[in-house]
Amino acid sequence: MQVQDPQYRERTLAAFDHQPWAEHLGMLAGDLGPGWFEIHLPLQPFHQQHDGIVHGGVLATLADTAVALAAYTLAAKGQRIVTIEFKINYLRPAQGALLLCRGTVLRPGRTVTVSEAEIFTVVDGEQKLAAKALATIAILPGSPEVGGTLRV
Amino acid sequence: MQVQDPQYRERTLAAFDHQPWAEHLGMLAGDLGPGWFEIHLPLQPFHQQHDGIVHGGVLATLADTAVALAAYTLAAKGQRIVTIEFKINYLRPAQGALLLCRGTVLRPGRTVTVSEAEIFTVVDGEQKLAAKALATIAILPGSPEVGGTLRV
Amino acid sequence: MQVQDPQYRERTLAAFDHQPWAEHLGMLAGDLGPGWFEIHLPLQPFHQQHDGIVHGGVLATLADTAVALAAYTLAAKGQRIVTIEFKINYLRPAQGALLLCRGTVLRPGRTVTVSEAEIFTVVDGEQKLAAKALATIAILPGSPEVGGTLRV
Amino acid sequence: MQVQDPQYRERTLAAFDHQPWAEHLGMLAGDLGPGWFEIHLPLQPFHQQHDGIVHGGVLATLADTAVALAAYTLAAKGQRIVTIEFKINYLRPAQGALLLCRGTVLRPGRTVTVSEAEIFTVVDGEQKLAAKALATIAILPGSPEVGGTLRV
Repeated sequence: MQVQDPQYRERTLAAFDHQPWAEHLGMLAGDLGPGWFEIHLPLQPFHQQHDGIVHGGVLATLADTAVALAAYTLAAKGQRIVTIEFKINYLRPAQGALLLCRGTVLRPGRTVTVSEAEIFTVVDGEQKLAAKALATIAILPGSPEVGGTLRV
Repeated sequence: MQVQDPQYRERTLAAFDHQPWAEHLGMLAGDLGPGWFEIHLPLQPFHQQHDGIVHGGVLATLADTAVALAAYTLAAKGQRIVTIEFKINYLRPAQGALLLCRGTVLRPGRTVTVSEAEIFTVVDGEQKLAAKALATIAILPGSPEVGGTLRV
Repeated sequence: MQVQDPQYRERTLAAFDHQPWAEHLGMLAGDLGPGWFEIHLPLQPFHQQHDGIVHGGVLATLADTAVALAAYTLAAKGQRIVTIEFKINYLRPAQGALLLCRGTVLRPGRTVTVSEAEIFTVVDGEQKLAAKALATIAILPGSPEVGGTLRV
Repeated sequence: MQVQDPQYRERTLAAFDHQPWAEHLGMLAGDLGPGWFEIHLPLQPFHQQHDGIVHGGVLATLADTAVALAAYTLAAKGQRIVTIEFKINYLRPAQGALLLCRGTVLRPGRTVTVSEAEIFTVVDGEQKLAAKALATIAILPGSPEVGGTLRV
């Protein structure tokens, strides 16, 4: 896939770094490239639901963030992106020390981009698919007065 | 809708209370009844993404929790529930002091229940729909060895 | 909800009437209004899957059409609409002589509208919810050279 | 992936062949294997919506059928499968002479299986991704009194 902004790496990582919610969750940026973005989540007790398994909302946060930032790598300088919607399927209990999430653009668009995300558990060095998501992201002009989850 | 467990209120509220992730997020149980469950979220700075708006993962957590607990009100004593999947559409930027989320069962089933959730912002006393979700929840026998987000 | 085009009824019904696939399926336009559109489907043997129940693809077609036309009632003259994505849950077997589908706009937007659809079976005069869908629709300028399911 | 029924090919193809709706649409079975199933659709004028593009309901039918039959390849003899829900994103206008759809199991389960589907246009010998779907399928015991899209 083709980037429009040669500084896309710095721009995308900066967007990731300025999210209080990402910090509250403990998400770490992994690698990224044109049309994809990876997140690492070292698991902590507060990520759990009542039964010792990671809460679905944690996985949904990883997916939402990864699909949006994958789209953001392809944006032009000054553009903004917001997730319009996503769907996530939980495939396996998420446990262990670390989750990996990779967001990938399926179809970049001028105003709407479609991305997917895969979340893996890492147990005994083996990665297993724990969740998969499919998402729609809006690409917005980046005027300073624009704000919000969906302003389209 | 018909409850199977006369103690469904206490049972459902106890399930809500034992979630470390719910506590980390700051979710509070609101009212509940047969086939529905409400959550209040007093907004705090750590709920935000980079632009001052509530992160989509926070809304997804509210939705995931509300659809599952709405289903749980109709479960028999000893049964367990896990969200299989959900889809969420973000309709408006979530801002202000408080979010309300109501999960409602659309179709209860013996092994699969379908629920939806609506999330409202409350600004100047007026509620506006900020997000809507549609979800599938598995109903599992509650043997102690069963654990996980999806064990079906 | 506010219409932009006083001729929205004629315009929306004309869009419905020019769909070869709607005719092949046997869909009939029901009533419509600002932000909603109803479809009737008299059931025929060719709508069935292998077990005598209506095929999920028939229900998906009803939902896709209803969410898009509900959005189209609110469009300006000359605008086009295309479904970006939808999710559908099947709640009950669809059988009997007639299905009703109602699409409703949840959140109209300048370039993206979110709609939902409900599909009902009609058995012994009683309507039962057989499926529910949640969808995202793009609103496009209507230049003649634009074509396609998603051109955004 | 592991099949439970050595006759899975014949059983799955027979299920495909007995669908009146598949015949009304003109779907043809392509190849299949453990956990995947392919469908070919030679395009005809009645597949179109009002603007000469294939209707989203046609693509949804392909996806629904392919995800379910992919799951069915892994079922035991006598089991039944029904699609609980799916989500589909339309990525490109579907045009040309032929569509290909491949359903693939992501996570087989004892009572619930998660599959995805990809639909490709074939233009000038080149395949392009036109739609992607993510679905949940119930695996049911095959007693003769069980019928319906969702009987869980």
